[in-house]
Amino acid sequence: MTSQSLDLLARGVRAASRTLAKAPSATRDDALRIAADLLVGEGTVVLDANQGDLERSKLVGMDPAALDRLALSAARLEQMAEGLRSVASLPDPVGEVLDGWVRPNGLRVERVRVPLGVVGVIYENRPNVTSDAAGLCVKSGNAAFLRGSASALTSNRAVVAILRRALAKAGLPQDAVALVEDTSHETAVEFMRLRGLIDCLVPRGGRALIASLLEHATVPYVLDGDGNCHVYVDASADLDMAEAIVVNAKMQRPGVCNAAETLLVHADVAADLLTRLSQSLAEVELVADDRARRYLPSASAATESDFATEFLAMKLAVGVVDDLDGAIEHITRYSSGHSEAIVTRDVESADRFVREVDAAAVLVNASTRFVDGSELGLGAEVGISTQKLHARGPMGPRELTCVKWVIRGAGQVRG
Amino acid sequence: MTSQSLDLLARGVRAASRTLAKAPSATRDDALRIAADLLVGEGTVVLDANQGDLERSKLVGMDPAALDRLALSAARLEQMAEGLRSVASLPDPVGEVLDGWVRPNGLRVERVRVPLGVVGVIYENRPNVTSDAAGLCVKSGNAAFLRGSASALTSNRAVVAILRRALAKAGLPQDAVALVEDTSHETAVEFMRLRGLIDCLVPRGGRALIASLLEHATVPYVLDGDGNCHVYVDASADLDMAEAIVVNAKMQRPGVCNAAETLLVHADVAADLLTRLSQSLAEVELVADDRARRYLPSASAATESDFATEFLAMKLAVGVVDDLDGAIEHITRYSSGHSEAIVTRDVESADRFVREVDAAAVLVNASTRFVDGSELGLGAEVGISTQKLHARGPMGPRELTCVKWVIRGAGQVRG
Repeated sequence: MTSQSLDLLARGVRAASRTLAKAPSATRDDALRIAADLLVGEGTVVLDANQGDLERSKLVGMDPAALDRLALSAARLEQMAEGLRSVASLPDPVGEVLDGWVRPNGLRVERVRVPLGVVGVIYENRPNVTSDAAGLCVKSGNAAFLRGSASALTSNRAVVAILRRALAKAGLPQDAVALVEDTSHETAVEFMRLRGLIDCLVPRGGRALIASLLEHATVPYVLDGDGNCHVYVDASADLDMAEAIVVNAKMQRPGVCNAAETLLVHADVAADLLTRLSQSLAEVELVADDRARRYLPSASAATESDFATEFLAMKLAVGVVDDLDGAIEHITRYSSGHSEAIVTRDVESADRFVREVDAAAVLVNASTRFVDGSELGLGAEVGISTQKLHARGPMGPRELTCVKWVIRGAGQVRG
Repeated sequence: MTSQSLDLLARGVRAASRTLAKAPSATRDDALRIAADLLVGEGTVVLDANQGDLERSKLVGMDPAALDRLALSAARLEQMAEGLRSVASLPDPVGEVLDGWVRPNGLRVERVRVPLGVVGVIYENRPNVTSDAAGLCVKSGNAAFLRGSASALTSNRAVVAILRRALAKAGLPQDAVALVEDTSHETAVEFMRLRGLIDCLVPRGGRALIASLLEHATVPYVLDGDGNCHVYVDASADLDMAEAIVVNAKMQRPGVCNAAETLLVHADVAADLLTRLSQSLAEVELVADDRARRYLPSASAATESDFATEFLAMKLAVGVVDDLDGAIEHITRYSSGHSEAIVTRDVESADRFVREVDAAAVLVNASTRFVDGSELGLGAEVGISTQKLHARGPMGPRELTCVKWVIRGAGQVRG
């Protein structure tokens, strides 16, 4: 794909975004519901396309976990359709008046939510992201400019074709959802540099993508980063509760960003809690500091790098700390700013942890696994931001909007 | 300055930011009031330092407008002090609960405003920016990491010394305000790449700075960009009001970002309005399209680049359009997304302009000059953002904060 053709495609998406931004929410929601029906009703076309992607990926030796992420089925198409329907039924963030006031000179000031314009998404090989991301964009009045992976190209093309037909049926411009079909690294870099054509880029991928983005991007972006999440069990904790939370945070779904990667235990309860956990975490590979290893016979010695690593696996680093300060210090050093939990009965410990730990989400007496758009009530999410600017934590349709100042007067001029 | 010493300085600022974030707002406000008193009481030290900067700048032939921006006086110090006092008296944005709800499983969810951490500011030769920016940062619980210009270095050093003494007197860490004294381009680039140490960078400067930032920055930033602002006078406009608004938007202070640079006039009122304006804008250099030149004898022909230019001077581009669509099309093409105004009596025109023009601020029947933090009631501003993410339009203390999700449970785990 030449830069000219990418630029031309982007200009088409941008023009469509202006029409979409003016469309009533009922029309945008219609498009999503029509797309949901088409995904199910004409699913065989998508499944055939996906079959081709799967066969090509097997031939080049893709690993089973990645193949599973790539694979669609009638049930997964139904889930994608259900996702679109549920996003359609969420309240429209566009047009919300955030606040407003009247100035002494009579000027009426309002801050109003408006769509960002064009949202770019770079993602890996899960074709369901195509409909999820496009759904959230259209819901919030934004055009979706998508760049998926090479391995999912024919699946993505089939899903995008359905989304574009649905837009047309609802009377909206098809270019409000568009796929960059050139999956080369060079085109990804050009995509990151479409300043003035992409209003917000959401990268969903690993460290190489983030590094490339930091180096090359000139468009604004929201980072969906790593989750090196901690659970700290305080001296005052209910140890039954602590055990349940640690087990859930580590084991319920170890491969995701809100799973716990490090357990910190107050020295006073280390013997009790770790003795219990050596049973309940029997299936988990443990790496621990010297003090924790006393109670964890199966644990090997944790290195500095273990505490810095998001394992995304059935592996947990364990450390014993002297007090809350020690826990906060450890978290400040190693946290990726995603989700951090304390288990405690003590009000002061809870308050200090909430206040002093710098992360998108802090939890008291709950599993880190709850830090997720649908668990927290956003309906859906386009990702979980670990940056501080614009959006932090789970990003729903609201996080795909920005603010416009609307100032109404009766001829006021500045003196 | 070596990268190591910049890194070391940044780590000191970062450590101070954590202490500052925990400090009560009364203590932070105290520091600002003490600084205000010191700026006035010990102003001769600052004025002496400034005298040195001025003399050196004259020797190298700095132009009078730049010398004026660099110059301090007892009156300007009093203004800087007053700025700090007024920021101190603003409400504290930190700790504000934006919203909160309870999930069906009993989890209590809140979104709370917290400081960003370390705010970096790169700015040009106005030493008052040193106290203004530091004041807004400390107000919002952030450390201020400042990099001013070479020409203002001794002035900035004197102002920063006072701010740091005030922090110490209030019991806060001095490193919560720090100045990078190496003003080389290389160090500015390293400053933009202190990822993990600077949470938000606010560049206040011209196009070269913005271009360098887009190319090199790896830290998050909020752009304070150009203002190529338009006033569109609709067919239905009150022409007295239109004339007053155009004159004010262009002439009241032509060198600032919210001054108008282009006037667009509906064809139906072009003869009337432009005939009037040829008198009232007699001191303004006019460049106009062919249709507007009929009524503006002194105007020369406007080029494409005139319509794209932020003149920041007593110069105005003028165009005649057939209707509102023509005006919106012109603005969509040339606007820098800062402030755009319509003068109209027609509700539908006003509504469409507000909805379809994509800018930080849209104004109906008011001068673009009102788009300013203090005019709109924010008390103070660190700049006017022309980007869409995080902050758009005037940025007050609130825009120097981010959100933290606080989730409180009673042992909930995810099923």
